[in-house]
Amino acid sequence: MTRFEVLTTQAEETVDITAQVVDAAARSGLAEGALLVWCPHTTAAIFVNEGHDPDVLHDIALVLGRLAPQGLAYRHGEGNSPAHLKSLLAGCSVTLPVSEGRLALGTWQRVFFADFDGPRTRQVWVQPLAGAASEVP
Amino acid sequence: MTRFEVLTTQAEETVDITAQVVDAAARSGLAEGALLVWCPHTTAAIFVNEGHDPDVLHDIALVLGRLAPQGLAYRHGEGNSPAHLKSLLAGCSVTLPVSEGRLALGTWQRVFFADFDGPRTRQVWVQPLAGAASEVP
Amino acid sequence: MTRFEVLTTQAEETVDITAQVVDAAARSGLAEGALLVWCPHTTAAIFVNEGHDPDVLHDIALVLGRLAPQGLAYRHGEGNSPAHLKSLLAGCSVTLPVSEGRLALGTWQRVFFADFDGPRTRQVWVQPLAGAASEVP
Repeated sequence: MTRFEVLTTQAEETVDITAQVVDAAARSGLAEGALLVWCPHTTAAIFVNEGHDPDVLHDIALVLGRLAPQGLAYRHGEGNSPAHLKSLLAGCSVTLPVSEGRLALGTWQRVFFADFDGPRTRQVWVQPLAGAASEVP
Repeated sequence: MTRFEVLTTQAEETVDITAQVVDAAARSGLAEGALLVWCPHTTAAIFVNEGHDPDVLHDIALVLGRLAPQGLAYRHGEGNSPAHLKSLLAGCSVTLPVSEGRLALGTWQRVFFADFDGPRTRQVWVQPLAGAASEVP
Repeated sequence: MTRFEVLTTQAEETVDITAQVVDAAARSGLAEGALLVWCPHTTAAIFVNEGHDPDVLHDIALVLGRLAPQGLAYRHGEGNSPAHLKSLLAGCSVTLPVSEGRLALGTWQRVFFADFDGPRTRQVWVQPLAGAASEVP
């Protein structure tokens, strides 16, 4: 398993980590299989969505902010319950296909790290998973 | 990795793809492991839920429509931000257990492809993942 | 693949299953790879979030209850559509990294089984997945 850091600079910030994940896929030497990309934090998320138009990230943040708003009858004393909820809803890991030695994503897909309780120095863990035997003819 | 197509015929449509996934599991020759079932699109989802009563799919669509409604202060110019959000909330992939050579799902579970920005010809990618060494006694 | 049971005692209850998952990781004999932890039910979820302060679980239940409330125009006759929706939003499985022979979680992360339609005797399935070849130097 390899690790890399993501430094966020704002309270809420979504960072495109596709390049680091592509690099991890290449360094794994994996031909067929998957990469488990894991966020070891409970107030951040890792997800895949459109990376071409940055306005999509704005709209994702807009809706997550409505789904887990500040000011509900939260009990968690740290005041960051919305960040825990956004982590749950967006998900704290993705398992990405690797095929023919490369990370296999759709045309518009990018991998994002979203910090909902920044700014912080965050970790991303990457575990390569082995593909199975080839097709039965 | 194998691929198959899903043709949707409506703006929003959820298609049961369990048969195709069961078939992919059988063709993989995998005895113990998992299938990564990947949606390479950013306005569609792949998820597992009840397939016995089609009204469950109605109710899922009803709630997703409330969580990511039309008409918010979206910036993404294509007008399909609700579809991007529904993809994020429902998830763009599942990793399904394979055991004793067969896809292992609960009694009521089925695998669904949901198109939130159709109708389109969509792709599903299936990557078999190897199981690990047997139990330590 | 191994299985264990979770007994819930309330209509909605979230149970910390980290100890069982740690044990499954140890018994798998896996050094590097992942554990697919699967919920074979459609009205329950398995997710990872903070386990230090139980109030976080309260706040998660609070928000999920707002996102999928009782009383909408549901069609599913069993009356448990909110439970199906919460299962979808929180997710019915996690794929967890295993490294150096141990389950690898962040400092505050715990693995939870959430029953949204209890009390019931529930199942959790655990499938170890093999890690891939070591790093290319």
